Amino acid sequence: MKKRKIIMDCDPGHDDAIAIILAAAQPGLDILGITTVSGNAEIEKTTLNALKVCDLVSLHNVIVSKGASEPMMRRRENAPSIHGDSGLDGPEFPALSRSWSEEHGVDTIIRMVKESEDPVTLLPTGPLTNIALALIKAPEIKENIEEIILMGGGTFGNWTPTAEFNIWADPEAAKKVFDSGIPLIVMGLDITHQAVATDNVINQVMNIDNNVAKKVGELLAFFKSTYKETFGFDGPPVHDVLTVAYCIAPELFTLKEVNIVVETRGEYTAGTTSVDLLGVTGRKANAKFGLTLDVDGFWDLMLEALKSYSAS
Amino acid sequence: MKKRKIIMDCDPGHDDAIAIILAAAQPGLDILGITTVSGNAEIEKTTLNALKVCDLVSLHNVIVSKGASEPMMRRRENAPSIHGDSGLDGPEFPALSRSWSEEHGVDTIIRMVKESEDPVTLLPTGPLTNIALALIKAPEIKENIEEIILMGGGTFGNWTPTAEFNIWADPEAAKKVFDSGIPLIVMGLDITHQAVATDNVINQVMNIDNNVAKKVGELLAFFKSTYKETFGFDGPPVHDVLTVAYCIAPELFTLKEVNIVVETRGEYTAGTTSVDLLGVTGRKANAKFGLTLDVDGFWDLMLEALKSYSAS
Amino acid sequence: MKKRKIIMDCDPGHDDAIAIILAAAQPGLDILGITTVSGNAEIEKTTLNALKVCDLVSLHNVIVSKGASEPMMRRRENAPSIHGDSGLDGPEFPALSRSWSEEHGVDTIIRMVKESEDPVTLLPTGPLTNIALALIKAPEIKENIEEIILMGGGTFGNWTPTAEFNIWADPEAAKKVFDSGIPLIVMGLDITHQAVATDNVINQVMNIDNNVAKKVGELLAFFKSTYKETFGFDGPPVHDVLTVAYCIAPELFTLKEVNIVVETRGEYTAGTTSVDLLGVTGRKANAKFGLTLDVDGFWDLMLEALKSYSAS
Amino acid sequence: MKKRKIIMDCDPGHDDAIAIILAAAQPGLDILGITTVSGNAEIEKTTLNALKVCDLVSLHNVIVSKGASEPMMRRRENAPSIHGDSGLDGPEFPALSRSWSEEHGVDTIIRMVKESEDPVTLLPTGPLTNIALALIKAPEIKENIEEIILMGGGTFGNWTPTAEFNIWADPEAAKKVFDSGIPLIVMGLDITHQAVATDNVINQVMNIDNNVAKKVGELLAFFKSTYKETFGFDGPPVHDVLTVAYCIAPELFTLKEVNIVVETRGEYTAGTTSVDLLGVTGRKANAKFGLTLDVDGFWDLMLEALKSYSAS
Repeated sequence: MKKRKIIMDCDPGHDDAIAIILAAAQPGLDILGITTVSGNAEIEKTTLNALKVCDLVSLHNVIVSKGASEPMMRRRENAPSIHGDSGLDGPEFPALSRSWSEEHGVDTIIRMVKESEDPVTLLPTGPLTNIALALIKAPEIKENIEEIILMGGGTFGNWTPTAEFNIWADPEAAKKVFDSGIPLIVMGLDITHQAVATDNVINQVMNIDNNVAKKVGELLAFFKSTYKETFGFDGPPVHDVLTVAYCIAPELFTLKEVNIVVETRGEYTAGTTSVDLLGVTGRKANAKFGLTLDVDGFWDLMLEALKSYSAS
Repeated sequence: MKKRKIIMDCDPGHDDAIAIILAAAQPGLDILGITTVSGNAEIEKTTLNALKVCDLVSLHNVIVSKGASEPMMRRRENAPSIHGDSGLDGPEFPALSRSWSEEHGVDTIIRMVKESEDPVTLLPTGPLTNIALALIKAPEIKENIEEIILMGGGTFGNWTPTAEFNIWADPEAAKKVFDSGIPLIVMGLDITHQAVATDNVINQVMNIDNNVAKKVGELLAFFKSTYKETFGFDGPPVHDVLTVAYCIAPELFTLKEVNIVVETRGEYTAGTTSVDLLGVTGRKANAKFGLTLDVDGFWDLMLEALKSYSAS
Repeated sequence: MKKRKIIMDCDPGHDDAIAIILAAAQPGLDILGITTVSGNAEIEKTTLNALKVCDLVSLHNVIVSKGASEPMMRRRENAPSIHGDSGLDGPEFPALSRSWSEEHGVDTIIRMVKESEDPVTLLPTGPLTNIALALIKAPEIKENIEEIILMGGGTFGNWTPTAEFNIWADPEAAKKVFDSGIPLIVMGLDITHQAVATDNVINQVMNIDNNVAKKVGELLAFFKSTYKETFGFDGPPVHDVLTVAYCIAPELFTLKEVNIVVETRGEYTAGTTSVDLLGVTGRKANAKFGLTLDVDGFWDLMLEALKSYSAS
Repeated sequence: MKKRKIIMDCDPGHDDAIAIILAAAQPGLDILGITTVSGNAEIEKTTLNALKVCDLVSLHNVIVSKGASEPMMRRRENAPSIHGDSGLDGPEFPALSRSWSEEHGVDTIIRMVKESEDPVTLLPTGPLTNIALALIKAPEIKENIEEIILMGGGTFGNWTPTAEFNIWADPEAAKKVFDSGIPLIVMGLDITHQAVATDNVINQVMNIDNNVAKKVGELLAFFKSTYKETFGFDGPPVHDVLTVAYCIAPELFTLKEVNIVVETRGEYTAGTTSVDLLGVTGRKANAKFGLTLDVDGFWDLMLEALKSYSAS
């Protein structure tokens, strides 16, 4: 079987971390690289966090490249209220086995896409700064990108009343990606809020006897506490994990082909995704937008992946 | 008992018409005036429609004034796909008993509010052009406005993916009203979509043996057909009627005090209301936003009102 | 000879006052009304100032109506640094012979235009709030407006680097007027800065032996001092007077037919007029824009008008 | 004497070409690199043109790197009406001695600034895309940039009524640069329109007996014809050359420290620079803005440079 080639562009982040852990367990995925971006935490932190997760799941040969440290046009904002000071608060991680690459994340994306014989799928789970910069610097890579499966946006917001954090944090980058013409799979809040790690789920994770599952349990426990405090949720939605899940089990998802545009100029609505579910705008569809998730199937996938790691 | 003094500023429109019919049946309401605006249909049509409804429910002494024929800044748009060519398609109405007042609707609002001993409640159920113009022309009327109970906005849209028709049709006017400091009750799509005229409801209306109910039945039948065609809804939501229902039976409503601002500058989001349900903006609450409706209670109220009209 | 019918919509203001004084001396002009607007000073002050000037030049039969007290959408801003606390600092004026009309300025404009047999010319010399509101409230008056000769805008700014005060103070109103389709004569800063009251001019004014000229001399002396302090100018430009001068002596002016649009959405450029002198936009001309003034001819006109008032 | 280290970021373009020719003749300047950008022509053309000029003046050891092929957010627009189809129409150039570097222009800027012991001065004479991307990708380079001497903007426009071409072509990039905090020297249209190549100047150039001067004469002749046709100018202003001239002879320039911001959101004013010459905004100065040029001194400098090239 031919492996699907992916680049994970992320800002770990609890759910980004779990997304990497899910991906690393998939025989069908070939992770060409992991690139980081400022988002859930500052760039040094998200990069260190990516390296911690790589060590945890033995992704020693996957390049980890540090990407953009600030949004294209706006002031940098991070989310310590959700992800703690380190961006990955909760578990303890051992000393790192290596540092990040000398190559800038944007250049890793460009190089990997250009070098790959097969089209590459990008999985951005943070602000879209790196992807947008890669597209500006080397527009020709579009031709070898199979699709972009991203976590971001939705028909409602979490960071403002109408905007989701990843899109809000760098609206200009998001606009660049949504207007690029590349096939898009969009996991917005509408569907990621269905993937809540309930107490039942967390218990099942904790009952798996290996170190990876143990860390995931600790990540979920911390994530649960901040989501409760900040948003009043009973369990935390593991947003970013859906991008990987879709990659390997698209049958768990119902999507709708729609037009999505990103607002960059509003007085109050910067970063809002206008998702034309009703088809009222007359604009051509440019994305498949996640509507419903087979929740049980999703968690089965996750638990199975965690069980696949060898016992500690 | 002291009657509550109200001005109905509307663009009938099927649901506006039913709102007037509900109001006219309430002994507790004193309708000081009906002012019309371009919205569901052009201004001449909405004004004629208001007069038709007044004749139907014998509101012969209530002034009907024609207001703004176009939005403050934008190109006029109407909604014939929903309300038919006349703005009130469906029933036949007899020849009118009178014409509209010489006074402009904006001036009727200003004069009525100034002349009233008791504070006046405004019930706008169309674009907010008249209210905004009244506030610009005579800012001092704010002091004698008790509250504004309006139909408009929501956390999602119907005319664009993020904007509701009334706010979208004149965003600048809406901004003026939402920023005015006047106490606001906002019946947005979140709650008005709960007030669906199901087949069961329509049947009950049609079984009431008087002319008013008969016309309402015909209005609902037409409204049902266009809502089905345009939006794929099984029954039409009677949006505007909620403003009157709240006036007389606030106990049927759950509301939340929130901040709401109106976007006027976005590339894609003009007319979007940013409703801060999560309290993430730090902006002070300026409105009570309708969350849930006691649906049965609401229809009981409506049916009772219809029954109160004398048999034909 | 048929007199030209004009309405002066103003915010006196030193140069507005002199504009009225110039107009009142013209046998060829029929001043139908004077309407006031918030601008150089608050609305009560500009209205009192208009009445003071009417008394000074015996315009006892011209209606003076108070118009808009605030801009359509923005926070009100006035210009006491230029016009002093009263809006007309400098001379002393006697007690007023009358008060303003009961009628709102916007309604005076609408009524006068509708009632006039001949087309009416509007001369706005303040923010365009009243004109815009009249056009929104009664779009049909367009047909009986001959042209609008306004002071505002230019290819550079005075209140911001790119915006002139009158347009900046109510950009939305200005946009409404510039987009209205009514023939426009625009006296922007490019030409009004040519009409500087030099010391030589002020001396000539002061040597005219009548009370009107005496007051004008005092107005110019005060205006000179604030223009020196605020803008470092050696003499004050009498901006608004050019609208009246054009009305009676268009031969003194070189104009160019151009497209002019008003920016309302910029982050830094609200109220900027984009004057397409180079013809690079491809947009259709909608205005005649003042380029050069016969300066000597202009002051001759003014001095002659002042001399025509009877000696004190 | 220590040489001043510069990077020329350009889109040749007739005046860019002459700027390189002036720079190459200066013993006091150390040209670290030439990077190209889409602007006057498409990126391949501007890069080929840069190489042609390098061959002409024997800059064989200066790296020429191809930079951004499109603006950050907007649709690419070029200026063939001014610079001809090749971007450098007029003279014939021999076959190139080399091609451009493998390194992307943005990376050349980053690397050169990081590697240089002395602070580097950037001379952008095209759209600011490369500079902005370098600042986003490697914000740390700010510390080793001495100043940015750029051609762009002004208090009036040439490509729109209020915007100059370089800023208009990529307003977001310009905003990034103007907000960067790096010391800026801004040669806007106000001063570059003083550097007109009159017939007298062109004749003097043509009378210099060497191949470089001959090509410059041919460039000016072509440039003259398009400026006449498009803008009606009698001679072409050699805008970009002023950045180099300032570098070596700042005493020829009068500048004013002012605040300059770039509009990116306006409906009509995108790319407008708001230059606060009057000090009315209260914003802190971030640039020195060119006011007046010693025109004779400037052309002497240019002619002297041309004479310094060896006879053909």
